[in-house]
Amino acid sequence: MPSDALPPFDVGLLAPVSVGHDALLSDGVVLSTMIRVERALVAAYVEVGAAPREARVEIDHVFGIDEKYGSPERGIDVDRLVREGVAGGNPVIPLVGMLKAQVPEEHRAWIHRGATSQDILDTALMVVARRAVEQTRRSTANAAVWARQLAVRHADDVAAARTLTQHAVPTTIGARAATWARGLERAAQRLGELTFPAQLAGAGGTLASFVEITGSQDAANALPAALARALELDAPEAPWHTSRWPVTEIGDALVQAIDALGKVAADIATLGRTEIGEVSEGVGGGSSAMPQKQNPAEAVLIRSAALRAPHLAATLHLASALAVDERPDGAWHAEWPTLRELLRLAVGASAHGASLLAHLRVDVDAAAGNLGRTGGRIVSERLRGVLVPLLGAEAFAALLAGDDDLAPRLRAMPELRGVDLDALLDPAGYLGLAPRLARGAVHAGGGTAHDRGGEE
Amino acid sequence: MPSDALPPFDVGLLAPVSVGHDALLSDGVVLSTMIRVERALVAAYVEVGAAPREARVEIDHVFGIDEKYGSPERGIDVDRLVREGVAGGNPVIPLVGMLKAQVPEEHRAWIHRGATSQDILDTALMVVARRAVEQTRRSTANAAVWARQLAVRHADDVAAARTLTQHAVPTTIGARAATWARGLERAAQRLGELTFPAQLAGAGGTLASFVEITGSQDAANALPAALARALELDAPEAPWHTSRWPVTEIGDALVQAIDALGKVAADIATLGRTEIGEVSEGVGGGSSAMPQKQNPAEAVLIRSAALRAPHLAATLHLASALAVDERPDGAWHAEWPTLRELLRLAVGASAHGASLLAHLRVDVDAAAGNLGRTGGRIVSERLRGVLVPLLGAEAFAALLAGDDDLAPRLRAMPELRGVDLDALLDPAGYLGLAPRLARGAVHAGGGTAHDRGGEE
Amino acid sequence: MPSDALPPFDVGLLAPVSVGHDALLSDGVVLSTMIRVERALVAAYVEVGAAPREARVEIDHVFGIDEKYGSPERGIDVDRLVREGVAGGNPVIPLVGMLKAQVPEEHRAWIHRGATSQDILDTALMVVARRAVEQTRRSTANAAVWARQLAVRHADDVAAARTLTQHAVPTTIGARAATWARGLERAAQRLGELTFPAQLAGAGGTLASFVEITGSQDAANALPAALARALELDAPEAPWHTSRWPVTEIGDALVQAIDALGKVAADIATLGRTEIGEVSEGVGGGSSAMPQKQNPAEAVLIRSAALRAPHLAATLHLASALAVDERPDGAWHAEWPTLRELLRLAVGASAHGASLLAHLRVDVDAAAGNLGRTGGRIVSERLRGVLVPLLGAEAFAALLAGDDDLAPRLRAMPELRGVDLDALLDPAGYLGLAPRLARGAVHAGGGTAHDRGGEE
Amino acid sequence: MPSDALPPFDVGLLAPVSVGHDALLSDGVVLSTMIRVERALVAAYVEVGAAPREARVEIDHVFGIDEKYGSPERGIDVDRLVREGVAGGNPVIPLVGMLKAQVPEEHRAWIHRGATSQDILDTALMVVARRAVEQTRRSTANAAVWARQLAVRHADDVAAARTLTQHAVPTTIGARAATWARGLERAAQRLGELTFPAQLAGAGGTLASFVEITGSQDAANALPAALARALELDAPEAPWHTSRWPVTEIGDALVQAIDALGKVAADIATLGRTEIGEVSEGVGGGSSAMPQKQNPAEAVLIRSAALRAPHLAATLHLASALAVDERPDGAWHAEWPTLRELLRLAVGASAHGASLLAHLRVDVDAAAGNLGRTGGRIVSERLRGVLVPLLGAEAFAALLAGDDDLAPRLRAMPELRGVDLDALLDPAGYLGLAPRLARGAVHAGGGTAHDRGGEE
Repeated sequence: MPSDALPPFDVGLLAPVSVGHDALLSDGVVLSTMIRVERALVAAYVEVGAAPREARVEIDHVFGIDEKYGSPERGIDVDRLVREGVAGGNPVIPLVGMLKAQVPEEHRAWIHRGATSQDILDTALMVVARRAVEQTRRSTANAAVWARQLAVRHADDVAAARTLTQHAVPTTIGARAATWARGLERAAQRLGELTFPAQLAGAGGTLASFVEITGSQDAANALPAALARALELDAPEAPWHTSRWPVTEIGDALVQAIDALGKVAADIATLGRTEIGEVSEGVGGGSSAMPQKQNPAEAVLIRSAALRAPHLAATLHLASALAVDERPDGAWHAEWPTLRELLRLAVGASAHGASLLAHLRVDVDAAAGNLGRTGGRIVSERLRGVLVPLLGAEAFAALLAGDDDLAPRLRAMPELRGVDLDALLDPAGYLGLAPRLARGAVHAGGGTAHDRGGEE
Repeated sequence: MPSDALPPFDVGLLAPVSVGHDALLSDGVVLSTMIRVERALVAAYVEVGAAPREARVEIDHVFGIDEKYGSPERGIDVDRLVREGVAGGNPVIPLVGMLKAQVPEEHRAWIHRGATSQDILDTALMVVARRAVEQTRRSTANAAVWARQLAVRHADDVAAARTLTQHAVPTTIGARAATWARGLERAAQRLGELTFPAQLAGAGGTLASFVEITGSQDAANALPAALARALELDAPEAPWHTSRWPVTEIGDALVQAIDALGKVAADIATLGRTEIGEVSEGVGGGSSAMPQKQNPAEAVLIRSAALRAPHLAATLHLASALAVDERPDGAWHAEWPTLRELLRLAVGASAHGASLLAHLRVDVDAAAGNLGRTGGRIVSERLRGVLVPLLGAEAFAALLAGDDDLAPRLRAMPELRGVDLDALLDPAGYLGLAPRLARGAVHAGGGTAHDRGGEE
Repeated sequence: MPSDALPPFDVGLLAPVSVGHDALLSDGVVLSTMIRVERALVAAYVEVGAAPREARVEIDHVFGIDEKYGSPERGIDVDRLVREGVAGGNPVIPLVGMLKAQVPEEHRAWIHRGATSQDILDTALMVVARRAVEQTRRSTANAAVWARQLAVRHADDVAAARTLTQHAVPTTIGARAATWARGLERAAQRLGELTFPAQLAGAGGTLASFVEITGSQDAANALPAALARALELDAPEAPWHTSRWPVTEIGDALVQAIDALGKVAADIATLGRTEIGEVSEGVGGGSSAMPQKQNPAEAVLIRSAALRAPHLAATLHLASALAVDERPDGAWHAEWPTLRELLRLAVGASAHGASLLAHLRVDVDAAAGNLGRTGGRIVSERLRGVLVPLLGAEAFAALLAGDDDLAPRLRAMPELRGVDLDALLDPAGYLGLAPRLARGAVHAGGGTAHDRGGEE
Repeated sequence: MPSDALPPFDVGLLAPVSVGHDALLSDGVVLSTMIRVERALVAAYVEVGAAPREARVEIDHVFGIDEKYGSPERGIDVDRLVREGVAGGNPVIPLVGMLKAQVPEEHRAWIHRGATSQDILDTALMVVARRAVEQTRRSTANAAVWARQLAVRHADDVAAARTLTQHAVPTTIGARAATWARGLERAAQRLGELTFPAQLAGAGGTLASFVEITGSQDAANALPAALARALELDAPEAPWHTSRWPVTEIGDALVQAIDALGKVAADIATLGRTEIGEVSEGVGGGSSAMPQKQNPAEAVLIRSAALRAPHLAATLHLASALAVDERPDGAWHAEWPTLRELLRLAVGASAHGASLLAHLRVDVDAAAGNLGRTGGRIVSERLRGVLVPLLGAEAFAALLAGDDDLAPRLRAMPELRGVDLDALLDPAGYLGLAPRLARGAVHAGGGTAHDRGGEE
């Protein structure tokens, strides 16, 4: 790089959550993908019979593309490209010039022919997003598998359920893990249902240039699907240049996945507190100051993503709502870095989520020990049903007020002779469906949407 | 109301976008719905054989409920309820006391039996959301129908496509309306696919209380689906007390609808500018100061919703990611008013969207007139292909630099003798697939997700 | 109310955080304030000599206004007003008609004379905001006073400092409370520095109507300050109809206050966990299901506000950035309910914050007990300095690895004979400046902004 | 770089708004600044008399630091650093090891002595922020200067004021530019008032390690100010490890600046629309498809920043509210990339804002021409006052309904004989204070905050 080259702005120093997982999302990959889209456009022209096959072959050769492994961005002066992208507001404009300069004159006209910069950038971002979403989906699904394993393994291991920070009733470690799994599974499913349409519609969304070039409405109409096929994208039903649901639906599903991971991380960070100690990370984090500390580093990184992601998705929605005209004056530009950053958080958070759950250490004894912190009051909901008839509501309320051990006090009460107090006070006897839920059984009658009996 | 009653905080004074459309979302309706959920819980107990049928009959009688039209909240001192809801942080706690006081002692125990306040409030919000989402879906679908009518009616009416605020190429009014329709249709589809599961899992998500009360795991397991049936909700597969995708998926779909409506409103506000004048609202807004003005009032109201909605959905995601423990310490509480406000914006914006499109006045002549603003340069993309070979790139660039009328200059050029300049300069001759897209035809090969040829 | 009246949308059912504290923010108050602004405009005309004094007197009489306690909204059919505000997109338009109808014909012309609806609504919201900000400031300052009291009272009471959820080093309860106090004090200071300018500039921000009416540029120029005086607002330097910093600066300061309160609530919710038990709320929250629970209800309510507030402030900023033209097409309308809701969260959260800190129960013994959870490792930072030279780094690391009690192990080591292990292991001996910070001392050299030595 | 090095994630490809302006914010600069903070800590120890002067001299030498121009990051394997920062969740932990390895053993202990990673990173981000804020402030102030020049130059050039997209009343081009200037000036002022405190408090915010190391509470207490002096930061009054207003106040002021720039950009994008044509960018943007287009590229880039910035500031507030314990479990980590990205948008948007206003082309004739678009109705507010008494309200309303030219119709009316219709219809005669506001005069009585007459 020349000495006045732009320094790399971001190499991950401030983004540890995604380091090692975001290689598919770098500027280099985006640039390479834009070139592949330009190349795929030539291929699409060939497919619909408008361009000669040699154009594609020659351009593939010049760009050094074979289908998967080429690095077509190698010939591009990225620094110059980035600088020259400012004037027109997007990097496609200078890129086209640079690509054309590489291609022999006889085939040069096919580069970017009829396309607008939005066609290239939108399509490239869909290619990039599809891969990163797939990576996220796999990691999220893996996380769910690990959560399910925890759920089954600890299906009967009793622990305190906590509501509003306080011990509420008993549950099992497995039931909590099953809740994690369900959230992750739902998120993975939504990621898997996403669509990634190519975008190709020319300057104003009318494909007029393509009709002009191919000389045929039908050929022009076939081009977007041909482009999609060349890039393994979905064929668009119609141009979506200013109908931005393909972007926001991706954003929503990514945040849903990060939410589900964030819930897991929030629980693990909490359960791993020094005073609670029911879980710890298998691959923990050190400290620069305190040698004894084993920090919940993966949970912390996931949480850092979960606190940022909703705001990124909100930006995408805002851009969608403001997609005025046939290309908006700022809203489109706001999408690119936002979608890319959201993908980055998602690949990182999901990778850490899978790792966190795969290596989680569960301290069953600590969980059992914590159950005793309220002196037996963790089963007070159950006690109420049995004891109020025998003792009266007032005496029962007085029992609950303290935090001493209930057992000896109850044993001393003559009214309770004949009551099996050991069984009554045993948290393991008040688990409801927790073990069943942990093992993955679902409610009777539970089902999918639209099972509702009727409509008002 | 007693003299120290709380004044109604919000009667719509600052929320004109939803006035007249949000009756299903008022505090009164939410309260009434919570009571219906409590009643439905009794019905569910009856259905699984745990409670006597008389309990339900008597409770229905006391609450004045028949299935659809009762107003069970009539007997509640709302002001006291709201005040007493502060101490425990939610309104269900005092409500249960008030309801129990109304019910004869023999059946009183069945009120709220085994439930936690989250069960009631989550389920009630799902009932409220289901209706408001359905209302939104219908309005959004209606808006799409009106947009499709505009698209077909104006399929061939030429207008300027604008990108980055500037005239780009010709399109048709109908093609733009078809873009609106596609966004609205997609949003309506997603709203229609939502699921609204009941929530019933007791204090810690284990249903332990229900097992205790019914004496049967199977009966307890059947209760949530029975509750759902009684309320025309979806049966939950499992408790979702801290797996909040049912809330965020609703939020995401609502914002997607508001985005699609916002795009329409942004276009209409722009196209209706005094200098552009291609559309105007059929039911316009006046001004307190300027008697001549006809403001795009519905577009403005829709836009006010579209600028707010993404932030509300972000709050829901954040709450989902922070759903720690078996009930979180603030995140759950942040959801209620946020979801309700988002539903409010959606019912209002979609109602105005349907009205706006139903009554939109399109000035075809103004659109045609505006096409001439660049002296013919709106077809410069096309001109380039024809003229550069004849004139050279430099002379062509010089032609485009000004904003005078191109036609006389071109006619004066000897190089262009024999070129049909009238045809070449006619915007109607450079429409590409715009009329076809306006009529609803989709791209060849256009299809649904997962039509991709392969996977890497 | 007639039978088809709009039901009150929001009476606080879903907003427990503000119930009892938001009386200054209701629609009724906003309406009343808009009327007071219209009346103040008449007063301003009188003051600059344009209107006869009788006009003001008569209008005061008709509206039933004396300076402070009238209820001028009594004569308004609110339901009709709200419905009629939809067509023009704001409630001022129908209000003006209703007010004029009340005023005798001879003075009627002075109602809303020369004003635009934005003048009235912006100014009214500033009046409302000023009062609610002052209420928030007072509550926040009170919360800070209580935090300072806690800080001093517990300046020497040792507790674990926790970083990334894990015990780190010792601190004192008072040092933590002093951190709370500093955040609250800073926020209160910023609230106190806000400015609340009146807005009066007519339809296009030029005051042309006022020049026409008063016949004098100077008189027109004096009107905004006269209006401000009549309402105890700040005189605007210039119109801010589309320069919205007065709104966003209020929003920013409100969120800063809620942030500071949220930090307190997050700590209290955490420190009050069943397993930690170092604090509890003095006025706790019950549960509908679990009789034993004492929930951190005020902390939970504050947190629910803190999770929502940043998104509301973001909406205000967005509206400011999109304040196009001389009145924007939606951005302005998005501000009203957003600012009002943010004020609502702030008055509620700050009131609960003051109460929470005033009544907080601190369990000094529990804090001391928790210090032992890591078997002495809480002072490992200190131990390292002393022990590594004596034992070597490897042996030291081995010591830290477990969680057993360090004291007996250290006492058994011959290398440590002569070391005062009791003193070394005492957390109270490793408090640094915590007691000093708790008592409010600040760093040497600590100061205000702009004390930097130099500038590059 | 070795072949498996992490590729630079972000070199600006998707962030054209900041390309060329964000050199002070790159990862390289952040890294270099962290090293400078570590070095400044040594200097601070020397200053308070705890470390020998040679330690600082030697460390400066090793790091290649002279006060301003060294590149201490040259010796660091950034790739390894970034990767190793994942395990502990922040880059300081591996950095300390790398730095220590460079320093001779006798002085090695002074590296990072007593500090925690948060001390280093928070302080480094303050150094980085201070410079970028100063750059933003200068650009914003420059933009304001250019806006003031436009205001004065066009103080009397009449143009349409537009409200809700429609022509409202006349204003002047200069009055609009003065509104821009006021928003920019206020924002620059707030940026200039920010404080940038160093942070140095050790592991738990108590400075215990520093007391231990220096052997003196007073020396420890003096360290933070000494660190601040060495870095030209503000001395902190107290630790702000979990009282995050220094971060959010920066964020709020940055967004306020971007809002003010966004308002300018929104107006310029609108006024430059093909049909309006009152302004155009001096340094315009091309198009990859349409040779004739001159896009408002700088306005578009600024708007892309303005749509993103509010969400970034919201993330900072959220992190502040969730700053639990003595270091939070995710909230702190969410701040770093968010603050940096917000700084990036601010330096970029403000640079483009200054350029945009410096080079803005104003078409006074186009503005004058547009005034005629409503056939004279732009002065209808004025006409009402004169004509209603002469014609009656009904006839006046009928006049306004159309959009034909009012002048001939009015001239034909016998009732209006004697009225100077030319003067009455001249927009230049209905400018109010617009020229005066444009020239920078402020309202009589306009002033600063707290000029309010009294308090209720």
